[in-house]
Amino acid sequence: MCEWNGNVDDPVSRLFEKHRALLEKAIDACEKRYSWTAYPESPSSKIHGKEVPAAGKARFETLLDKPFELDLPGITGRVGEEVSPFTEVPLGITYPQVDIDAIFMAAKSAREAWCLKSTEERTGLCLEMLDRLAQPESLFVNAHATVHTAGQSFIMAFAGCGANALDRGLEALAYAWKAMQDVPATASWERRFGAAAETRLEKRYRLIPRGTAVVVTCATFPQWNGYPAILASLATGNSVVVKPHPKTTLPVALFVKSMREVLAENDIDPDLVTMVADTRDNPVTIELMHHPDTAIIDFTGGPVFGKWIEENCTNALVYTETAGCNSVVIESTDDFRGMCDAVAHSLCQASAQMCTSVQNVFVPGDGIETENGHVAFEAVSRELVAAVERMLEDPKKAAYLCGTLVDENIYAAIDEAAAAPAARVLRPSGRYAHPEFDKARTATPLMLEVDAEARELYGKEHFGPISFVIRCDDAEHALARATDDAREHGAITSHVYSTDEGFLERAEYAYHSAGASLALNLVGMPINFAAAYSDFHVTGLNPAGNACLSDLAFVTSRFRIVQTKFPAASGDP
Amino acid sequence: MCEWNGNVDDPVSRLFEKHRALLEKAIDACEKRYSWTAYPESPSSKIHGKEVPAAGKARFETLLDKPFELDLPGITGRVGEEVSPFTEVPLGITYPQVDIDAIFMAAKSAREAWCLKSTEERTGLCLEMLDRLAQPESLFVNAHATVHTAGQSFIMAFAGCGANALDRGLEALAYAWKAMQDVPATASWERRFGAAAETRLEKRYRLIPRGTAVVVTCATFPQWNGYPAILASLATGNSVVVKPHPKTTLPVALFVKSMREVLAENDIDPDLVTMVADTRDNPVTIELMHHPDTAIIDFTGGPVFGKWIEENCTNALVYTETAGCNSVVIESTDDFRGMCDAVAHSLCQASAQMCTSVQNVFVPGDGIETENGHVAFEAVSRELVAAVERMLEDPKKAAYLCGTLVDENIYAAIDEAAAAPAARVLRPSGRYAHPEFDKARTATPLMLEVDAEARELYGKEHFGPISFVIRCDDAEHALARATDDAREHGAITSHVYSTDEGFLERAEYAYHSAGASLALNLVGMPINFAAAYSDFHVTGLNPAGNACLSDLAFVTSRFRIVQTKFPAASGDP
Repeated sequence: MCEWNGNVDDPVSRLFEKHRALLEKAIDACEKRYSWTAYPESPSSKIHGKEVPAAGKARFETLLDKPFELDLPGITGRVGEEVSPFTEVPLGITYPQVDIDAIFMAAKSAREAWCLKSTEERTGLCLEMLDRLAQPESLFVNAHATVHTAGQSFIMAFAGCGANALDRGLEALAYAWKAMQDVPATASWERRFGAAAETRLEKRYRLIPRGTAVVVTCATFPQWNGYPAILASLATGNSVVVKPHPKTTLPVALFVKSMREVLAENDIDPDLVTMVADTRDNPVTIELMHHPDTAIIDFTGGPVFGKWIEENCTNALVYTETAGCNSVVIESTDDFRGMCDAVAHSLCQASAQMCTSVQNVFVPGDGIETENGHVAFEAVSRELVAAVERMLEDPKKAAYLCGTLVDENIYAAIDEAAAAPAARVLRPSGRYAHPEFDKARTATPLMLEVDAEARELYGKEHFGPISFVIRCDDAEHALARATDDAREHGAITSHVYSTDEGFLERAEYAYHSAGASLALNLVGMPINFAAAYSDFHVTGLNPAGNACLSDLAFVTSRFRIVQTKFPAASGDP
Repeated sequence: MCEWNGNVDDPVSRLFEKHRALLEKAIDACEKRYSWTAYPESPSSKIHGKEVPAAGKARFETLLDKPFELDLPGITGRVGEEVSPFTEVPLGITYPQVDIDAIFMAAKSAREAWCLKSTEERTGLCLEMLDRLAQPESLFVNAHATVHTAGQSFIMAFAGCGANALDRGLEALAYAWKAMQDVPATASWERRFGAAAETRLEKRYRLIPRGTAVVVTCATFPQWNGYPAILASLATGNSVVVKPHPKTTLPVALFVKSMREVLAENDIDPDLVTMVADTRDNPVTIELMHHPDTAIIDFTGGPVFGKWIEENCTNALVYTETAGCNSVVIESTDDFRGMCDAVAHSLCQASAQMCTSVQNVFVPGDGIETENGHVAFEAVSRELVAAVERMLEDPKKAAYLCGTLVDENIYAAIDEAAAAPAARVLRPSGRYAHPEFDKARTATPLMLEVDAEARELYGKEHFGPISFVIRCDDAEHALARATDDAREHGAITSHVYSTDEGFLERAEYAYHSAGASLALNLVGMPINFAAAYSDFHVTGLNPAGNACLSDLAFVTSRFRIVQTKFPAASGDP
């Protein structure tokens, strides 16, 4: 049911010693928030050789067109409806469909022994899981699986859904460890009550998990939010049921399988981590979230469903990361081309399907000052379009940068936005020719010009490569509109470009007041990048989600404390 | 709107330096969980002299029969319906009735400057508030005010609603400080993306409060839960609206007034802490909790309302402490009289109106083993009754121990319980003669014998001096019944008496599995006592509340983090 802190007598605790240095480094990185990664970000054969990458690809290919082997409790049938966004060919992989009560019963049963393990043992196991997932053998097949489900380019899938996601997992684990370490194992307590003899008590404190955690992963980046949620809940003693998106199940099935293998190899009931696959026509997410055993919900996905969960799942602790309409406010710049390149990169990267992708670019109607003098509004728009065109010139680079659309319905959304009466098309969306996959579901950025009044159009998330250059009265108006949107419709990233210190100060105040974090004058780097151990991702103060990757609040409520006290003389019962 | 961590240039930060050693000691006590108090627990004139206590009493008396001076925003009228449980005479004190929107507007406005203060400044102010409330001038009037509202004996009111409550407040502040310190003020971040030049960023992190916190205090111990909630929210930058129970408003009005004075003296808008008084006929609690500005709710009170809040206030973070049916399981003992005295003390103390008071005493039907040999079930009951009688023998001691009933309706509840067909009266409740106040609303313990099957009767909280000796098949049955109740109906304290190591182990496992903390074989001390810095009060794992006094989870979500990042070369805007 629960563990004695500090009782490290199980052989499994060797895993903690094995990875202790890594955990300590992660804690240090979180405390000082410098740049660090524990895992390889590059798939280059210079690092991995030729064999391992090839074997990873081959392993992915052997998974196609057959049942995925995952020995779950309560299997009742099989489902699977993934289609590669690169080939438009169904993957042909089926996953076990399971009886939900059987899964929850197994999760509960597995938890009984798990939470008797010490904090060290549980954390050691979680570190071993990360280590397993970080092996090149895992990284390459994971990347290919992500490519052909989430639709990312291979390089993006390898880094963003490999190292970057593992770093987020390790970060969450570091916070969980810190929070658990804050509770001592034992205490001695002595005092006098009135004239009575001194009372001497011994006390001990146990960490008790909440119960079963349901982790709902999204179609685009299932590992990036999935690893932190799963590991934070596991380390604190809970069992985890993962509910993957029907479009992106394979990467989840792979990591669930790896986690279960690590558990089984260490004589721990693998049903601590299970997966419930469903279909778009028969979703089971709400049934999972409302199951009487569900104590924690981690959800990544759309803001409407996220808000519904926050309001209707009072049976559980709820952690959400959804989306907002991320903004750029351009007041002035001393690197006009660098700025346009930076914004264009965000409009292109992963076809703007990242939660950090920019959507709304607010520009003063009478233009901006730059290092080359005044630039008119129209010329800013033109240069943004030109910057996008430059990104797409080389089909190989376009493919690397944009990847494909995770959802074929985005084409219709692009058409609908382009036809909006309030919008003027600055740049139409089209398909770029993918150098490798001729049927790839590609789309280049649709860029629209609108007036600031057209809030109904731009003041919500348009998922996919749809962006707006918004004509404002002036920079203050731009700032006011952008921050109102952050407050009301959410924001995960926000950018301001200005050479005016006073404006930067006002912008910072305005965005922070709207509950949004801010990046100033970023150029020469992918501005979508959110760094584990350094960037607090999602503030929880605006509608784009209530949970942060990662802070203490992300972990401290996943467990509770019980204690026993008894007279010191009577010994330890 | 928010502060830069570490920006300590305000004179107010001197308060932090003034109290720093105390805060550090509190943090140490929380980490090691030894016995410590920062405040005087005894009202003895040996400590305080004669003048200060007399002045405190006089100050209380001057408050009677007139409007309480509290300069709040939006005053619309006055309310006040307190009656002394010792004299049955109305206090005749009225409090400002306020326009709720005006209060919330003032709270919001006060917060704007408050959260621009540094963590040190805010914490320093909170420490100064505790210091003010801990001055003998405050402690004595606070004790008298508590006596004549909550109905506690003077000594109980002085310690339990003085030092013990202040310690709980300091403890919560220590955790809030630790949680805030976990976020650094700034960071430097450097890395290379692909072939690009190295990116060098500076980052800074700000703590942002949630908003307005509503603190609903209870009739019996408003300070004990009130101080931690108020200080945890204030320190993390929120503003606080306190909603006192209409029966126990005076002690709250006193501490709210003191807190406001400390703020005003330090040039901080006192509307950071306000109070909304209401009446039993026209309660405003739900209106406060559902106000659009309400971001945090701390509630102490009954379990039915507490559960309603948890389920229906998804607009805010909700922290509850309610009540359960606290149990004693007696398997055996080597100190029969000591055990009976300990249990009897709990049945008498504060007329069993404490959240830690024992209600259900489970005893094997064929009796127990003691240091004097076997004792039959009936003899256990008899000795428990005898122990209660011993506590009540001396009217002065009875008065000190029992105090009065906070609510006159408890008499009806006692009569109803005594008449329950499933119960046999072991000891009838009666009034004890109070040596000082002849109209004091006193009640001695009603003790009932029931069979274990009578769950409908004993399996819920009976607020007040109503207890059950429950005849079980055997000790295992007693343990099963008691822990089922803890799981289903809640428990804040639980006691087991046994000399059998195996039984103690099973009991610990069973209670912890039910989400309840446990005390083993406590004798020679008031077993209701929950020690700040040492006892984690309320587990959050059973229906007796979701929040713990105090752990990291009590504080980490009261603020959020926003950040700003910018190129290192561009300097600090």
